[in-house]
Amino acid sequence: MGNTFGQLFRVTTFGESHGGGVGVVIDGCPPNIELSEARIQRELDRRRPGQSKIATQRKEEDRCEILSGVFGGKTLGTPIAILVRNKDARPEDYVEIAEKFRPSHADFTYEAKYGIRNWQGGGRASARETIARVAAGAVAKKVLSVLYAEFEIVAYVTQIHEVVAKINRSTVTGKENIVRCPDSVAAKKMVSLIEEIRDKGDSVGGVIECVVRGIPPGLGEPVFDKLDADLAKAMLSIPATKGFEIGSGFAATRMRGSQHNDPFEMRGGRIRAATNNSGGVQGGISNGEEIYFRVAFKPTATIAHEQKTVTSSRKQTQLAARGRHDPCVLPRAVPIVEAMAALVLCDHALRQRATAIADRGSRISE
Amino acid sequence: MGNTFGQLFRVTTFGESHGGGVGVVIDGCPPNIELSEARIQRELDRRRPGQSKIATQRKEEDRCEILSGVFGGKTLGTPIAILVRNKDARPEDYVEIAEKFRPSHADFTYEAKYGIRNWQGGGRASARETIARVAAGAVAKKVLSVLYAEFEIVAYVTQIHEVVAKINRSTVTGKENIVRCPDSVAAKKMVSLIEEIRDKGDSVGGVIECVVRGIPPGLGEPVFDKLDADLAKAMLSIPATKGFEIGSGFAATRMRGSQHNDPFEMRGGRIRAATNNSGGVQGGISNGEEIYFRVAFKPTATIAHEQKTVTSSRKQTQLAARGRHDPCVLPRAVPIVEAMAALVLCDHALRQRATAIADRGSRISE
Amino acid sequence: MGNTFGQLFRVTTFGESHGGGVGVVIDGCPPNIELSEARIQRELDRRRPGQSKIATQRKEEDRCEILSGVFGGKTLGTPIAILVRNKDARPEDYVEIAEKFRPSHADFTYEAKYGIRNWQGGGRASARETIARVAAGAVAKKVLSVLYAEFEIVAYVTQIHEVVAKINRSTVTGKENIVRCPDSVAAKKMVSLIEEIRDKGDSVGGVIECVVRGIPPGLGEPVFDKLDADLAKAMLSIPATKGFEIGSGFAATRMRGSQHNDPFEMRGGRIRAATNNSGGVQGGISNGEEIYFRVAFKPTATIAHEQKTVTSSRKQTQLAARGRHDPCVLPRAVPIVEAMAALVLCDHALRQRATAIADRGSRISE
Amino acid sequence: MGNTFGQLFRVTTFGESHGGGVGVVIDGCPPNIELSEARIQRELDRRRPGQSKIATQRKEEDRCEILSGVFGGKTLGTPIAILVRNKDARPEDYVEIAEKFRPSHADFTYEAKYGIRNWQGGGRASARETIARVAAGAVAKKVLSVLYAEFEIVAYVTQIHEVVAKINRSTVTGKENIVRCPDSVAAKKMVSLIEEIRDKGDSVGGVIECVVRGIPPGLGEPVFDKLDADLAKAMLSIPATKGFEIGSGFAATRMRGSQHNDPFEMRGGRIRAATNNSGGVQGGISNGEEIYFRVAFKPTATIAHEQKTVTSSRKQTQLAARGRHDPCVLPRAVPIVEAMAALVLCDHALRQRATAIADRGSRISE
Repeated sequence: MGNTFGQLFRVTTFGESHGGGVGVVIDGCPPNIELSEARIQRELDRRRPGQSKIATQRKEEDRCEILSGVFGGKTLGTPIAILVRNKDARPEDYVEIAEKFRPSHADFTYEAKYGIRNWQGGGRASARETIARVAAGAVAKKVLSVLYAEFEIVAYVTQIHEVVAKINRSTVTGKENIVRCPDSVAAKKMVSLIEEIRDKGDSVGGVIECVVRGIPPGLGEPVFDKLDADLAKAMLSIPATKGFEIGSGFAATRMRGSQHNDPFEMRGGRIRAATNNSGGVQGGISNGEEIYFRVAFKPTATIAHEQKTVTSSRKQTQLAARGRHDPCVLPRAVPIVEAMAALVLCDHALRQRATAIADRGSRISE
Repeated sequence: MGNTFGQLFRVTTFGESHGGGVGVVIDGCPPNIELSEARIQRELDRRRPGQSKIATQRKEEDRCEILSGVFGGKTLGTPIAILVRNKDARPEDYVEIAEKFRPSHADFTYEAKYGIRNWQGGGRASARETIARVAAGAVAKKVLSVLYAEFEIVAYVTQIHEVVAKINRSTVTGKENIVRCPDSVAAKKMVSLIEEIRDKGDSVGGVIECVVRGIPPGLGEPVFDKLDADLAKAMLSIPATKGFEIGSGFAATRMRGSQHNDPFEMRGGRIRAATNNSGGVQGGISNGEEIYFRVAFKPTATIAHEQKTVTSSRKQTQLAARGRHDPCVLPRAVPIVEAMAALVLCDHALRQRATAIADRGSRISE
Repeated sequence: MGNTFGQLFRVTTFGESHGGGVGVVIDGCPPNIELSEARIQRELDRRRPGQSKIATQRKEEDRCEILSGVFGGKTLGTPIAILVRNKDARPEDYVEIAEKFRPSHADFTYEAKYGIRNWQGGGRASARETIARVAAGAVAKKVLSVLYAEFEIVAYVTQIHEVVAKINRSTVTGKENIVRCPDSVAAKKMVSLIEEIRDKGDSVGGVIECVVRGIPPGLGEPVFDKLDADLAKAMLSIPATKGFEIGSGFAATRMRGSQHNDPFEMRGGRIRAATNNSGGVQGGISNGEEIYFRVAFKPTATIAHEQKTVTSSRKQTQLAARGRHDPCVLPRAVPIVEAMAALVLCDHALRQRATAIADRGSRISE
Repeated sequence: MGNTFGQLFRVTTFGESHGGGVGVVIDGCPPNIELSEARIQRELDRRRPGQSKIATQRKEEDRCEILSGVFGGKTLGTPIAILVRNKDARPEDYVEIAEKFRPSHADFTYEAKYGIRNWQGGGRASARETIARVAAGAVAKKVLSVLYAEFEIVAYVTQIHEVVAKINRSTVTGKENIVRCPDSVAAKKMVSLIEEIRDKGDSVGGVIECVVRGIPPGLGEPVFDKLDADLAKAMLSIPATKGFEIGSGFAATRMRGSQHNDPFEMRGGRIRAATNNSGGVQGGISNGEEIYFRVAFKPTATIAHEQKTVTSSRKQTQLAARGRHDPCVLPRAVPIVEAMAALVLCDHALRQRATAIADRGSRISE
């Protein structure tokens, strides 16, 4: 229980890293929207292992198949099921962790919660699970682009360990390099750092920022399903995340109200915020400005160093990771952040439509 | 839509700052648990305005009434409705904001979303709404203390603007001063700062930290309803919050995996994490260690300074807050953070019970 | 858990027959819709005890108060809380049933489920709970009449015990007599029968039919939240109901397909069903024809006869009802049936709006 | 939206009759329960076409594959995805209905709702969708049998058109003949009738009764998610159903309270109902007696007769079904009724566990 996300654009995912496959059922997608496997595959390919020298060298093809909900290239309004088969399983890589709990992994907590776990490659807690999120996110992006002509979502790496990029948030585009950092100077340093860390058998984390443009005022459902609250949940549900901040974020805690407030002004015939410390959300509702937020990722838990741990039979032991792992998950996490943001926004777009009976708000929001 | 929180311990809140009152219906509270208005009132009194010289001087008595769901001092298993009547309304304080959108408030976004708003005192977006959260949280705390003998939840202020407290998270207790910061040296500075800022008609923000003890391993429902994801949502749904981090949080982004990982060890006959960068949650599931997280609050949006804004008829104008406001919301937000954390944990406690058929996990988690 | 109804037009009720009151929180009501206490009161007055000689003579005023969600006579889009205080409590009427389980009441099952119950007058299982449904239904009716110009809902008694009315479903209006049966000849017989039964200390049941007009094609969400499935649930959630049938209902089981099928034809420029055995719903989706269904009510469980039962301490005993009860609940249940039908339809109306992106279906459904 | 059923044992289905396949994701299944494809297949085989001379002669193998959630023959507590591929497609059978709306089918309403439909063989409205229900029901039955040692569920045909069987509900077992009617005399007549009707190109409906044994007191969540209300919804969500009644059902409307009430008595050391007009549910909560209910099925809409209808371009036309169809769906619907009942009961079993903190009720319900 806990594998469904969204109220109206409802996404239910399934699948362990080893077994029949991973996939998703999307219920509530509006009908008559063009959708193809190619469009979904494009996003999956951004997430896929083995894309570059700084990512894991595991080869996973991750071909998606649309099982239902699409007919003649268009959505039917019925559930869209998408399946990606598992391949390249090497169970022998995992024999050791059948018994030993990997530090800062979910092995112990899954065992404690369920009393059983699929120990092959992380099972349900494997990052492979995020394939389903990216597939669903591709559909959400498509719906959002039909609803909002100006819709655009761009995530990128702004920090790896101590390397911090300089990025103009408002002009950044989706053009990507292997580390997915738009500051090419910082990107070069990040790549070197990741290679160095990998060679040491260690790992690093960092920060991903995401900007969303073209969302009109009015999305978000206070007091609990605020747009920023749902974004926070979405981001913290991604493996390896430790923090979320929107707009001014933690920096706001060191500002005074007179510095932080975003004055309103008339611009281009619309009511606009002159500054955007709010990050595009006020009172839990989008205000028509750019929505932007940052997500903290911890260093990958899987490292080649010998680590202290215990076995499921409660014996003290040592463990060093084998197999092929990402020394830094951030580049591959960029499409996942985008996908989760798209799921939140698409769901809220539909929710807002449900109760928007008259042309209310038009005076203001147009 | 968006005023219900939780899956099994379901809380639905209602009420504007002006009108009949604010309240909550709790559906799913287990039966036969002792509950009194006094217990709820105690928590409400911690949130109430007018408690101290650094809080707003508005007098709001905020007396709660249990309307249903309790009989002979015990919960019935039926919905518990709690009502707090509104008092001390001064509509004349709000005439100006009927027309003018307060910067960084929700006036504009509510108008854009709904095409109508109760402009008296913030309406639904008023912090008065959090009364319902605190009342529900008092019930959740009670349930948790019945379920888990060691259960304890303590939130406190760790930072106001540039003043950062030194706090030993693992020994901190619920003993409170007026600024709710357990470091008495820092507390004194914080009080001075808030008074100074208030006298300037300005405002400040800061950070609240929350520690939860006595939660067993196994709470949290991957892959979306992870315990940390639901905590993040809960916190970002509180007015004026801009960020959330759990365990090592954003600091994790500057650590290497070999520093960050929490090794497992046998301690006291149980499997324990030797360090706790994870913040008590791994793979979205509690691991039996202390759960701790931090929440960033922006400076109060209501300030006495003249600010640029526009009217609902799209005219540029100026606005300076009148009335009695908190120059810093953090002291009063402490019980709200605790309440929302309790709601998340209580809901997950019930969810875990639902599927815990056998004594699975006992080998490990006891 | 189980006191919330609806996905988008979400209704959460609370309250026992004795205690602070009964009420409802409606979350998801569209904003800017005119709503007054008077409108809600009108429906409550149809449900109220003491209306006529054939209903219970208990005097319950049942005055409603809107606590939130309405401002200046219009809905705000925020939760609408409505409270009806309890009055006229006579706990002494109930002392006996604190110990004895009334046959075919919910005393035993509540005790078995919760281990505690409010034994005063039925507690949560009292028909008094339906006040909240009727109040919410009044709001739903209002929303539906804003959405659909031709919307009309009429329920009426078609059978009391062996007395069966003759009613032309398609012309029947909401004009009501005390037994709420539009066939005046049958109505007279029903009133006599109820009086006779009441004098014998016994009770009778019967059938209520409900017709809904003006619902366009397209409401209903297969495969589980079919319109007829949600109507069935709504009706069976009303106290004392034992059955539900839509359109041809159980009579369909004795027809052949060639008799039962509803041929399509062009009429008035629209695609219409020539007959309406389907009852206005096909494949779980409204087809634009009249929606009609019937609900079976058992005889009131409370009777003055001596009945065999047991005590909560498991002793065999006898029980005869005291107090003032309805010998037949159907007349007062008519507004409840309408209310629950309105809740289902209003919820589905909003759900359909959420995904109706283009003017799809217009070719057909207009 | 509407393809998920259940609150804790959550079932999400997908799939059209033509396309990649039909399937289900079950989220919330308790871990550590033995589960195999063979067990699911056994139930699917009862639903499968081509089983007997009175069912459609379409050959559909309907082999299920468990994609996730099971490891080493046991459930993991993670989502269980089950896929059944589509086979035996004959799109040429459906060319005509791409344009013509079949009377009393869902062609028109799907087109009106979504503006698009998969016209091949009924698409999502095809009875093939029920494969997913039966697969999920097999899992639910397994969980229920682990929870309740005495659990047993038996559905059977009690009426086909005018042929009514005589069945002792309390002794009936799951032994099945081709028409799935335990009264062998009636069964023979039913088979003859169905063959005769089939040869005439017509169809018939009937009634299925379902008995559930071994459910303890306490399942059901008033006031909306009553056990009987959820059963009603479950049954009316099955294609071709027109009515539902529990216990005395519509017959109750002709009884007096003194006849209908079920007196309580001590029997076998437990509190028992002496009669069972309630059908095992009182106040929406199971009372420990047999739960039994009946479901009305209309005659199959697909008949070989020429019928009047219109085209999607609004032309009057004629239509006669081609292809291979069931003249009577009831025998194949029996496992579907059982499956849906099992889903309701399993969900309520988990819901009851969630809040059953102490050994409350033990005094009474044991």
